[in-house]
Amino acid sequence: MIIILKKDPEQKQLDNLKAWLTGQKLTIHESRGDSHTILGLVGDTSTVDIDLLRALDIVEDVKRVQEPYKNANRKFHEADTVIPVGSTQIGGDVFTLIAGPCSIESEEQICLVAAAVKRAGATMLRGGAFKPRTSPYAFQGLRGHGLELLMEAKKLTGLPVVTEIMDLSQLDLFTEVDVIQVGARNMQNFELLKELGRTGKPVLIKRGLANTLQELLMSAEYVMAGGNGNVVLCERGIRTFETAARNTLDLSAVPLLKKMSHLPVIVDPSHATGIAALVKPMALAAAASGVDGLMIEVHNDPTHALSDGAQSLTPEAFSDVSAAVMAMLPYACRYHGGKVV
Amino acid sequence: MIIILKKDPEQKQLDNLKAWLTGQKLTIHESRGDSHTILGLVGDTSTVDIDLLRALDIVEDVKRVQEPYKNANRKFHEADTVIPVGSTQIGGDVFTLIAGPCSIESEEQICLVAAAVKRAGATMLRGGAFKPRTSPYAFQGLRGHGLELLMEAKKLTGLPVVTEIMDLSQLDLFTEVDVIQVGARNMQNFELLKELGRTGKPVLIKRGLANTLQELLMSAEYVMAGGNGNVVLCERGIRTFETAARNTLDLSAVPLLKKMSHLPVIVDPSHATGIAALVKPMALAAAASGVDGLMIEVHNDPTHALSDGAQSLTPEAFSDVSAAVMAMLPYACRYHGGKVV
Amino acid sequence: MIIILKKDPEQKQLDNLKAWLTGQKLTIHESRGDSHTILGLVGDTSTVDIDLLRALDIVEDVKRVQEPYKNANRKFHEADTVIPVGSTQIGGDVFTLIAGPCSIESEEQICLVAAAVKRAGATMLRGGAFKPRTSPYAFQGLRGHGLELLMEAKKLTGLPVVTEIMDLSQLDLFTEVDVIQVGARNMQNFELLKELGRTGKPVLIKRGLANTLQELLMSAEYVMAGGNGNVVLCERGIRTFETAARNTLDLSAVPLLKKMSHLPVIVDPSHATGIAALVKPMALAAAASGVDGLMIEVHNDPTHALSDGAQSLTPEAFSDVSAAVMAMLPYACRYHGGKVV
Amino acid sequence: MIIILKKDPEQKQLDNLKAWLTGQKLTIHESRGDSHTILGLVGDTSTVDIDLLRALDIVEDVKRVQEPYKNANRKFHEADTVIPVGSTQIGGDVFTLIAGPCSIESEEQICLVAAAVKRAGATMLRGGAFKPRTSPYAFQGLRGHGLELLMEAKKLTGLPVVTEIMDLSQLDLFTEVDVIQVGARNMQNFELLKELGRTGKPVLIKRGLANTLQELLMSAEYVMAGGNGNVVLCERGIRTFETAARNTLDLSAVPLLKKMSHLPVIVDPSHATGIAALVKPMALAAAASGVDGLMIEVHNDPTHALSDGAQSLTPEAFSDVSAAVMAMLPYACRYHGGKVV
Repeated sequence: MIIILKKDPEQKQLDNLKAWLTGQKLTIHESRGDSHTILGLVGDTSTVDIDLLRALDIVEDVKRVQEPYKNANRKFHEADTVIPVGSTQIGGDVFTLIAGPCSIESEEQICLVAAAVKRAGATMLRGGAFKPRTSPYAFQGLRGHGLELLMEAKKLTGLPVVTEIMDLSQLDLFTEVDVIQVGARNMQNFELLKELGRTGKPVLIKRGLANTLQELLMSAEYVMAGGNGNVVLCERGIRTFETAARNTLDLSAVPLLKKMSHLPVIVDPSHATGIAALVKPMALAAAASGVDGLMIEVHNDPTHALSDGAQSLTPEAFSDVSAAVMAMLPYACRYHGGKVV
Repeated sequence: MIIILKKDPEQKQLDNLKAWLTGQKLTIHESRGDSHTILGLVGDTSTVDIDLLRALDIVEDVKRVQEPYKNANRKFHEADTVIPVGSTQIGGDVFTLIAGPCSIESEEQICLVAAAVKRAGATMLRGGAFKPRTSPYAFQGLRGHGLELLMEAKKLTGLPVVTEIMDLSQLDLFTEVDVIQVGARNMQNFELLKELGRTGKPVLIKRGLANTLQELLMSAEYVMAGGNGNVVLCERGIRTFETAARNTLDLSAVPLLKKMSHLPVIVDPSHATGIAALVKPMALAAAASGVDGLMIEVHNDPTHALSDGAQSLTPEAFSDVSAAVMAMLPYACRYHGGKVV
Repeated sequence: MIIILKKDPEQKQLDNLKAWLTGQKLTIHESRGDSHTILGLVGDTSTVDIDLLRALDIVEDVKRVQEPYKNANRKFHEADTVIPVGSTQIGGDVFTLIAGPCSIESEEQICLVAAAVKRAGATMLRGGAFKPRTSPYAFQGLRGHGLELLMEAKKLTGLPVVTEIMDLSQLDLFTEVDVIQVGARNMQNFELLKELGRTGKPVLIKRGLANTLQELLMSAEYVMAGGNGNVVLCERGIRTFETAARNTLDLSAVPLLKKMSHLPVIVDPSHATGIAALVKPMALAAAASGVDGLMIEVHNDPTHALSDGAQSLTPEAFSDVSAAVMAMLPYACRYHGGKVV
Repeated sequence: MIIILKKDPEQKQLDNLKAWLTGQKLTIHESRGDSHTILGLVGDTSTVDIDLLRALDIVEDVKRVQEPYKNANRKFHEADTVIPVGSTQIGGDVFTLIAGPCSIESEEQICLVAAAVKRAGATMLRGGAFKPRTSPYAFQGLRGHGLELLMEAKKLTGLPVVTEIMDLSQLDLFTEVDVIQVGARNMQNFELLKELGRTGKPVLIKRGLANTLQELLMSAEYVMAGGNGNVVLCERGIRTFETAARNTLDLSAVPLLKKMSHLPVIVDPSHATGIAALVKPMALAAAASGVDGLMIEVHNDPTHALSDGAQSLTPEAFSDVSAAVMAMLPYACRYHGGKVV
């Protein structure tokens, strides 16, 4: 951490600051220039409050050198994290293909889709029971009953399941869920993250619409600090000024997250674009960039979906996307030294 | 709602669509042009799923004409909402001045600050017990004990209190809290909003960093749809590309929200800027724009604050801001026909 | 175009509006609902001023149905545009690989790099003579002399050249340049675009940092309206809140632009990310998404580049990227029905 | 400037870097920590290429301590700049009120509006002759003839005039223009800025839609580096995800620019919001925040304006805004110690 002081800092305040810093077991290197004095801090600065330092009269700016995340940091854990999920895994040599409907609507629907996506190459099943909807008047999901139907589809196909939790009061219902998804709107629901850190279950955290990659890693850090290292990161589009697609898929997040962290990274092209016709090109692009897997919405009849229908593919279209991705995968970044370190 | 069809839509699909729409009690007006056919829908379209329509093969685009919020909509409730809070109120003729520390640290601290801000003109006391912090390693607030200390300060000064809830499991502890704050990161925590709709307590909702004004009103709608009309809207800065301040305070939100909704609007210049020296100019600007009140962080000793110290004013500085705002208020937009309708 | 009127519009104003619209040869379809009256306009609305309509007292909102671009619109020109450039082309069956240094520094440098990138598979040479630099104190390019050196490299290698124009006073110097580049900062320099429309030369327009895809197409429309249909669109990153890379590469722009327009689309992963290690994964991702070509910065010695050194690859690294892209290309979206229409 | 090196940098590369830095007359302070080594550079770093440093293998990050602008920097010029314009001035004790139509349409129109805004308190007249329009099919302004009409209005009223230049080829026509405006889209048209630096004329630079405050100051620096210190900065809204208004007016830019620079700051609430009804509250808010003046669009008949009609006020409405601002001004930030330093 580097503290840039204002010109000619008041000596007493400077002494106080230095005393406070050394009290936190930090060593101070001081460089005096014509227009600024700089204090370089050496030691563990992860608990130092950067905002508090900025509030001081004599301080002009503070810049962080060390990343504020530890458990999620590739610097301290060089090897890729691989998370076993049922008979498959996320990360490592396996390319994860998660598919299923946005909302679970009926036993028939989820079982039909589950069987279809399995045939098409999916390694995991997704399906929403608790649905975060912008409007209180929109369909809110089948909730507990939806989870039961999802378990039926899991039994039927053997596919491990991913589904979203919206509140920690629902946690008891997630016992048989294989991967618990934290949605983009809950990425900084810290009480929820803390509680998920106390379970051993894999947690897939979606990046919030306006959250930086560092903030995404800090949310992963909440889960990991609780003792649960099974965290999957998911890029699903950020909010920008562009309105031609629902969100802006930020694919440079993939190599950047791979550089910053050892955690597996998944891309959701369905939510990122909100346009069915964009799923294939963006799935291919994500695969090429070196991602560990994809999460794609598939629906037996997109035109009758009860939620988010605009972004769902039919099983046939998904099968086409899946085949295209699989054919391209040997040429993707991750398979020929495209490591970003 | 307007549906723009692709050129030469397939007739059977068009008939299906029309049948589905009339089944939802909507009347259809059709206009055929050279390059597009347009369906104008008349009736209550608030529950129609716009994404689902966009997914149809024959549909090019769908545009909403009617606002998706009802209870929060000024069109259906012309008069300003006034919310009684203890011996004061939010909205109407009263200018609300909420002040207090970011975090409650000790009984001495919260009581000293409470007494000081009351002297300086504050009408309500704020103080954080549950603190949403980006890092799991940062101070997380005194939690339940913090609420007890806040109640001491309320008793001492008679000021009603505003404090943030982070999870609905904490709700039982908020019985004596006058206004429950939903933080920016929880603006779309819909489970929490629904539950708060079942209480009668005033709820202050902070705009999320990347949320539109319409989404803010939809979150208010969640609370109101549950039967609780006591909602206060709070602008506290949005996330943009500019990094000179912590966030970008969006003051045009004030007249826009006033036009869209009858709910009272508050501005928090402290969190919006993250810079103590910007609080005064932005507090004055917000007051001039026609806001119903301000929420300002005040700390007995900013340089020793345990959280968000960078944005806290001393009681003396707050007293100066308060006096400046009060002197300017008679010249603000709201007092001379600056209505935006 | 659809005009949404306020409730109970004043009749005389409504009659005036209708008369004004029919005077512009538009046919009006009127739909009256309980809360809104809607006017659907049929005819050529591309010259109707949407802002002016919004200013009318009786108008609540105006929504455009027809795209405001004609020449660039795929709806009116279904076939992909192919632009011949020297012995090669941009668009169609050829994958364009443009490479070269950010700034031309010396004859030796540009000739060495040109020969190296040709060997590595580049189909065109890029190099900056006029450099738009944020700081007046930074190197501004060799300007006219730089263009001369670029022509030497063109002669030597036979590669067609792309280089940026910064002001229309420089146009006379661009006679032998094969493709004139309009930089992101000049995307809406309309005087420059108009003048380039009067030349027959291919023009490569880079998307501005905060410009929508529709605005990019409107800038293309400026050139095309002047009679020059040889326009290439280039995505090079947009400005968002994320600071981990220099800009956010928006790859969904590729399929979206391909759907909206018949013009060829190029991606510049070097400027988009500003990080050399991200060029390979993002080049692969762009190629997979269906782009017509790439523009990549290459430098003989990145650590001594006079400008933008952070994003330049060595010729060896470029050779690796080029080979990886070429190997992957047969599996990219464009080659197996990944058309987005 | 601070250079953060990767862990265990290669010694030869480090020696090369140090030699290169000392060759640029910089003194190096080195701090070695466990996980990073930091080089603090003391001396004039304004010409050091930060991107080039970041490209080096051994460098992890580079952070600037010194601002890259000098002439515009308040640190080196403490007193507010005051720019004389005709019989009035911009900055200092005068509050500048610039008003007039978006486009000059006819002699009658511009003269009527000029007389009306003068009566209402305007100190300067604005009017567009060269109009930057997104669409090539929209009205492009009366151009040279428009400037002649503007001069008629200047003669008639004695008001100094502000009008936009779009290309440096137009400069000869601007001899009698009092303040030359550089539009938001040209904020980084560096060739134009350089040329304006060679004139002595006041230059009003509008902030680009996606430009940081630092970039705005760097554009001012281009003009000032050429010897022309008469630069006025203008905030006119930035582009964000919010679509309720045309742009997002960033009022914290006012106190921030005042802190960073000694140049006068103007706000344009008309373009920032694009909504006539928002002009008054935002004009008041801007005035309260401590700005040096306002630029407001006024039209004799907003419903017949040929461009940007949506944001124009009638002379009567402007008169109301002007009176409200003037009444509030004594209570604004700038008049009671609201200095931000």
